[in-house]
Amino acid sequence: MSVHFRKLALIGIGLIGSSIALAARRQGLVEVISIATRKQETLDQARDLELGDIYTLDAAEAVRGADLVILCAPVGAYEEIAKAIAPALSPGAIVSDVGSVKAHVVKVVAPHLPDTVSFIPGHPIAGTEHSGPAAGFAELFAGRWCILTPQPGASTADAEKLAAFWEGMGSNVEIMEAAHHDMVLAITSHIPHLIAYNIVGTADDLESVTKSEVIKFSAGGFRDFTRIAASDPVMWRDVFLTNRDAVLEMLGRFLGDLSVLQKAVETGDGPALESIFTRTRAIRRSIISAGQETAAADFGRPHEAPPAPAIPFVREHGGGDDA
Amino acid sequence: MSVHFRKLALIGIGLIGSSIALAARRQGLVEVISIATRKQETLDQARDLELGDIYTLDAAEAVRGADLVILCAPVGAYEEIAKAIAPALSPGAIVSDVGSVKAHVVKVVAPHLPDTVSFIPGHPIAGTEHSGPAAGFAELFAGRWCILTPQPGASTADAEKLAAFWEGMGSNVEIMEAAHHDMVLAITSHIPHLIAYNIVGTADDLESVTKSEVIKFSAGGFRDFTRIAASDPVMWRDVFLTNRDAVLEMLGRFLGDLSVLQKAVETGDGPALESIFTRTRAIRRSIISAGQETAAADFGRPHEAPPAPAIPFVREHGGGDDA
Repeated sequence: MSVHFRKLALIGIGLIGSSIALAARRQGLVEVISIATRKQETLDQARDLELGDIYTLDAAEAVRGADLVILCAPVGAYEEIAKAIAPALSPGAIVSDVGSVKAHVVKVVAPHLPDTVSFIPGHPIAGTEHSGPAAGFAELFAGRWCILTPQPGASTADAEKLAAFWEGMGSNVEIMEAAHHDMVLAITSHIPHLIAYNIVGTADDLESVTKSEVIKFSAGGFRDFTRIAASDPVMWRDVFLTNRDAVLEMLGRFLGDLSVLQKAVETGDGPALESIFTRTRAIRRSIISAGQETAAADFGRPHEAPPAPAIPFVREHGGGDDA
Repeated sequence: MSVHFRKLALIGIGLIGSSIALAARRQGLVEVISIATRKQETLDQARDLELGDIYTLDAAEAVRGADLVILCAPVGAYEEIAKAIAPALSPGAIVSDVGSVKAHVVKVVAPHLPDTVSFIPGHPIAGTEHSGPAAGFAELFAGRWCILTPQPGASTADAEKLAAFWEGMGSNVEIMEAAHHDMVLAITSHIPHLIAYNIVGTADDLESVTKSEVIKFSAGGFRDFTRIAASDPVMWRDVFLTNRDAVLEMLGRFLGDLSVLQKAVETGDGPALESIFTRTRAIRRSIISAGQETAAADFGRPHEAPPAPAIPFVREHGGGDDA
């Protein structure tokens, strides 16, 4: 399906916003891109990177005449943005977003929007640990899933048009209820971030093990957690402030399972440990088969070559066995 | 420092053993490599991969005449191996290992070894989620740390010779007490594995979120945890059976910190969340600076290109602003 929007307004231009700008432009999905930010500094960066065509500190100005508006700011700023843009939205426009929570977004944004627009909150399940307008790249969404949660009043045609926009950037699209989205993301994203932030903090606070030791010996597993624990702090603060119930429910499950594992360690229950550790390989294999992970060992991290051999080996004894 | 061993005996030939065989051979650090395994099948694989010169199911036979013996089997098998090889060890040989715990290894191995050998347990902090003889590669140890824990009776010269062997394969070497090693690894490796195994299990057990959803949307963070949760189950069972006290202490710290974070989510304490989430970026930066992690976004995972643009964009209206 071919899709074109005449004017795309991006409110906020961090990692996700800038990646949309680059991908939508490269894929020929939009004519004009207008970008609004809260801070002048971010706007200047976006202009220097040539991410759009129109740059403004006024979100209402940015959305004027736009047929697609995507909120790409931290979720905590959404209500204020919704109030500001509502009077300037064009009838027939699609209003969407990229926030990591959905029920809260519906709650704070929907009441402010006019009936004349289609409100279809979205969430691309893609990202890196980097943030800001310079972190974006056009390939970010390729092969990843984007979840859309159309609200009452949004036409099917508009949902299909927005889906085609994401597909045009290489995404797969799934439609679901906002509340279900929040439960799915609590376990696949929010709890992983919470425990990654937590263990990095724990390691940082120890007295028995120095920070230098944590850093040196991090290749034993710890470093894997530091990637998502390096994600944008404000964005993640907002996630935990706005998806509290689902996060606490999934955290309760996680802690319940962890106490079983703790007990197995305490009592030295080898068969229980081995059985828990065996079943988890299958999930990784499925994720790789589904195209959501690289099959390369160690995420494909580069491995340096060992140093050049000191002295070429010379066999002194003709044999070479254990005689 | 140039170092040569006349005969290296590897007891066990999984990911680490096979990587030592390949690196030691390529770097010219050894003359002869003898390999012993418990299972015929693994031995045949090692022979097919041409990892060594001598292949046997008899560990005692493998160590005969060796000046360097490295145990590369799961730690749970060490005591039996120590008893089996003790009578065949050559006077002056260095006996080492690659196990993920050290105090337990000293406890079960040292009593069986003759006074005529230097016992220097070791632990290369390197690996991937793959296991078995075919998973090894010569670059595995390059740039990574190897910890050595020389025991009373081991000469300084032998410790230096073993350090030079690891340096010859590209490692950095650090000497420490076995008990301290176990505390350092509990936080940098064992707890990360425990919570990774745990969250993968939690996700697998949910009824409210399907397995298919966990897989599809894993790029939100979850998939990062599946890598170390795909590690060898028997090896990790043994780690938790043999480093219980340090693991439980570090787990207690982790859970204490997590309850603070849980409380902050419950009470909606935004400033506390933001402050916890902000401090963790610095550690990742330090790990990258220390050469223990790639600076590339997303571990350098490959990103596919989005599909080719459907139709080249044609500007219909000369302008291109929001008029």
